[in-house]
Amino acid sequence: MENCPTSPSLSHLDAKGHAQMVDVSAKEQTVRTAIARCQVRMLPETMSAIAKGNAPKGDVLATARLAGIMAAKQTANLIPLCHPLPLQKIDVSITPAPALPGYIIRSEVKTRAETGVEMEALTAVSVAALTLYDMAKALEKSIQIEQICLLSKTGGKSGDYQAAIVDLEEPG
Amino acid sequence: MENCPTSPSLSHLDAKGHAQMVDVSAKEQTVRTAIARCQVRMLPETMSAIAKGNAPKGDVLATARLAGIMAAKQTANLIPLCHPLPLQKIDVSITPAPALPGYIIRSEVKTRAETGVEMEALTAVSVAALTLYDMAKALEKSIQIEQICLLSKTGGKSGDYQAAIVDLEEPG
Amino acid sequence: MENCPTSPSLSHLDAKGHAQMVDVSAKEQTVRTAIARCQVRMLPETMSAIAKGNAPKGDVLATARLAGIMAAKQTANLIPLCHPLPLQKIDVSITPAPALPGYIIRSEVKTRAETGVEMEALTAVSVAALTLYDMAKALEKSIQIEQICLLSKTGGKSGDYQAAIVDLEEPG
Amino acid sequence: MENCPTSPSLSHLDAKGHAQMVDVSAKEQTVRTAIARCQVRMLPETMSAIAKGNAPKGDVLATARLAGIMAAKQTANLIPLCHPLPLQKIDVSITPAPALPGYIIRSEVKTRAETGVEMEALTAVSVAALTLYDMAKALEKSIQIEQICLLSKTGGKSGDYQAAIVDLEEPG
Amino acid sequence: MENCPTSPSLSHLDAKGHAQMVDVSAKEQTVRTAIARCQVRMLPETMSAIAKGNAPKGDVLATARLAGIMAAKQTANLIPLCHPLPLQKIDVSITPAPALPGYIIRSEVKTRAETGVEMEALTAVSVAALTLYDMAKALEKSIQIEQICLLSKTGGKSGDYQAAIVDLEEPG
Amino acid sequence: MENCPTSPSLSHLDAKGHAQMVDVSAKEQTVRTAIARCQVRMLPETMSAIAKGNAPKGDVLATARLAGIMAAKQTANLIPLCHPLPLQKIDVSITPAPALPGYIIRSEVKTRAETGVEMEALTAVSVAALTLYDMAKALEKSIQIEQICLLSKTGGKSGDYQAAIVDLEEPG
Repeated sequence: MENCPTSPSLSHLDAKGHAQMVDVSAKEQTVRTAIARCQVRMLPETMSAIAKGNAPKGDVLATARLAGIMAAKQTANLIPLCHPLPLQKIDVSITPAPALPGYIIRSEVKTRAETGVEMEALTAVSVAALTLYDMAKALEKSIQIEQICLLSKTGGKSGDYQAAIVDLEEPG
Repeated sequence: MENCPTSPSLSHLDAKGHAQMVDVSAKEQTVRTAIARCQVRMLPETMSAIAKGNAPKGDVLATARLAGIMAAKQTANLIPLCHPLPLQKIDVSITPAPALPGYIIRSEVKTRAETGVEMEALTAVSVAALTLYDMAKALEKSIQIEQICLLSKTGGKSGDYQAAIVDLEEPG
Repeated sequence: MENCPTSPSLSHLDAKGHAQMVDVSAKEQTVRTAIARCQVRMLPETMSAIAKGNAPKGDVLATARLAGIMAAKQTANLIPLCHPLPLQKIDVSITPAPALPGYIIRSEVKTRAETGVEMEALTAVSVAALTLYDMAKALEKSIQIEQICLLSKTGGKSGDYQAAIVDLEEPG
Repeated sequence: MENCPTSPSLSHLDAKGHAQMVDVSAKEQTVRTAIARCQVRMLPETMSAIAKGNAPKGDVLATARLAGIMAAKQTANLIPLCHPLPLQKIDVSITPAPALPGYIIRSEVKTRAETGVEMEALTAVSVAALTLYDMAKALEKSIQIEQICLLSKTGGKSGDYQAAIVDLEEPG
Repeated sequence: MENCPTSPSLSHLDAKGHAQMVDVSAKEQTVRTAIARCQVRMLPETMSAIAKGNAPKGDVLATARLAGIMAAKQTANLIPLCHPLPLQKIDVSITPAPALPGYIIRSEVKTRAETGVEMEALTAVSVAALTLYDMAKALEKSIQIEQICLLSKTGGKSGDYQAAIVDLEEPG
Repeated sequence: MENCPTSPSLSHLDAKGHAQMVDVSAKEQTVRTAIARCQVRMLPETMSAIAKGNAPKGDVLATARLAGIMAAKQTANLIPLCHPLPLQKIDVSITPAPALPGYIIRSEVKTRAETGVEMEALTAVSVAALTLYDMAKALEKSIQIEQICLLSKTGGKSGDYQAAIVDLEEPG
């Protein structure tokens, strides 16, 4: 939900501090996109096992990608004050990052609606990462999910957003 | 899912690398617990707004806690190969960490079942963190969710686990 | 959730007043039942239309019964701090009560678990009643759902409960 | 679903009396609102415990409000013949009513769609009330949920509706 | 999802063969319909028992119809790459087919959206058929669900479709 | 649900023909398995495209397998009178059957509960098949899902079941 940039405040709270799903009916339906990412850090041997388990037809990364896509569709059921929205595109990609070592997960979500899809994109990468953890946890319980953040958003009255985060650049 | 400690491998993959929800019917029903955590890093002014929005009766942290608790109950629907389990305790706490600045989120989940609740605990902190993001995103889109990890687990044949992660100690 | 009868207090709140799904792992798995009811009051002509619409094969009451049964299975997803439970019986009945005029809805739920099924029984009658409203609202928007309450529960350490409510006796 | 005012009949039944989700594709997308309410009657001492448990940061009423908001988003999954709709506003408020004694729950829901949101508003107050019951049931099992009804609706061809119910006026 | 008729290919796969929910934001919102069907083959005595169990007010066919309608609304949660859509009509009918012997199930779904509702119509008949199986399985475990297929679709750039399947004609 | 073999009747109907989720609380918790199958018939060129799209890392069959596994966990939410059960194993396999041409889908589900998992196994193959349809429908809308049936079940008082269906033997 984009608030007016001239008086930003906590979303979803009314004057008494009570949670509500705010009224977006006066906002315009426009195309809106959001891109989010996170990384999953693990031991080199865990990463090797996933790489091996995924080849040639193993389902490891496919399972995590699908979990992320399906979770994006559950966003309004998971995040209490999110508006239920039609979604017109969900893409989740998982890239090996040997320098971490681990994986970079990236999602892109698009809608045509009165409010944005930042939470859908963030939910997609989070659940894809949790699914990677689930599939590798017998090998390593110390896997960490790191730096879940919004990379960019477009559309909506509050304007576009582009993260300026150098240290999120994908390692090696 | 704990695998045999003598031959750890990727959970949930059969001999062909195909995903499956593995058979736990031969495992014993025992009490199992898992504790997970993450942190949400934000600008000092965002943290101030949340602190203010939460007082005296504001719903910010309560909303995030409840979202985490309810998400734990959705774990088997979100993580494709997780076993559906009865859950006997879910607790989510959110602690201000001015030195981050931001918040530390911690969950504790308990069951009596054939398999563990690590994913439920990790899902709870992840969704609680996403909910914090949702409520503060009008103020700051650069909020990051960091260091989602398992702190400990007990119960099950694979033995207990205790994270040995110094740098996760709660700041401030 | 039954609390210790010697110090009853609000369920689901910890010492700080924060919501949690309380630990029931130390409680015994026993058979537990709950019976709930409500009534739906409407104009005589609305009741006639339902009676007619339901005969001979109309789906009005069947739809409401099924909605109640299916909602009972969603209780832990609807009521934030309810424990997810296996359910071993759900029965919903709807009885015409011409003296209201309207219908009496009654549910009976059974489990074998560490905690009770009061909320499942109450959710069943509530959603069955809402479904009746939905099917008749083109005829009358002033339909009221009244007196949702627990009639009885059995099982559990807190003992059995029997409502002593004379004026809930079924009219007509 | 608004039916033609000149021939009102049971919604959702076809000519054979079979349930169906009726065709609304020829209806116009307009802004539609609905306001519903109910009350939760309890013993004075139960009301005191909730008031105490809710102060200063207790989660009792926040939990019930959120449960109501989230349930409104589940309406089409709970009420078999409801159309799935985008929702653009959901607000649930809970007001102490010492004269009951108990609480008045009120919801307001808004959409821009081909059909109305009466069921979403009614579902929100019902589940908020059930959640209050859940949180106080260790103290009192005789809590009653009463007078669930629609206060008003706007938008749609069937015209606006305003309940004319004097005795629903909020006590004391 | 209709693909360009000049280069048909697998839906939902990107250039690397990875699953994604494809971008439909550039497609036009138009009214789209889909009609699907299947048949449920059983022993004559099973069919008799259903006929008897359904009369005069038995809920067998009503339960299966409702299950199909409700499942259509879950399509985007069941089929990983389906777009979540508003639905404007869902109708499920079940017709006795003594010559099978068994039942013919037929669904019709309508939306106004950027993509079609074939999967919603197919999901509706499938789950209605599974529900018939569930209600009769104590009598006969060899019941078969057969010939689930799309009968027709309209709307969308890929054009209309009409099945040319003679042997699906309804027996007797 | 297994009924007493000496008086088989429609499951889930009470004496009035009303649907209910029958009481299984007196039944013994034992290990129960069910195996189901179906086949998906398509044009040879559609089958070739899937084979190609699936290699070397394409997600077609992985997506369908996962959809089947996740759907098995939704069975009690889809089939109105099914008991919610813990599930201890879900396996879905998809085998090319060039002689069809098409694919054979097979599921195996296991629980330890008071009632069986036939519906979970049947739901898994049905939704896996629907997902295959979804991924190939841009190529061919005449794909058919055929012969959904139970191959075997074990456990429970009603005894084991083994399908005696010669013509279901896997072609080619």
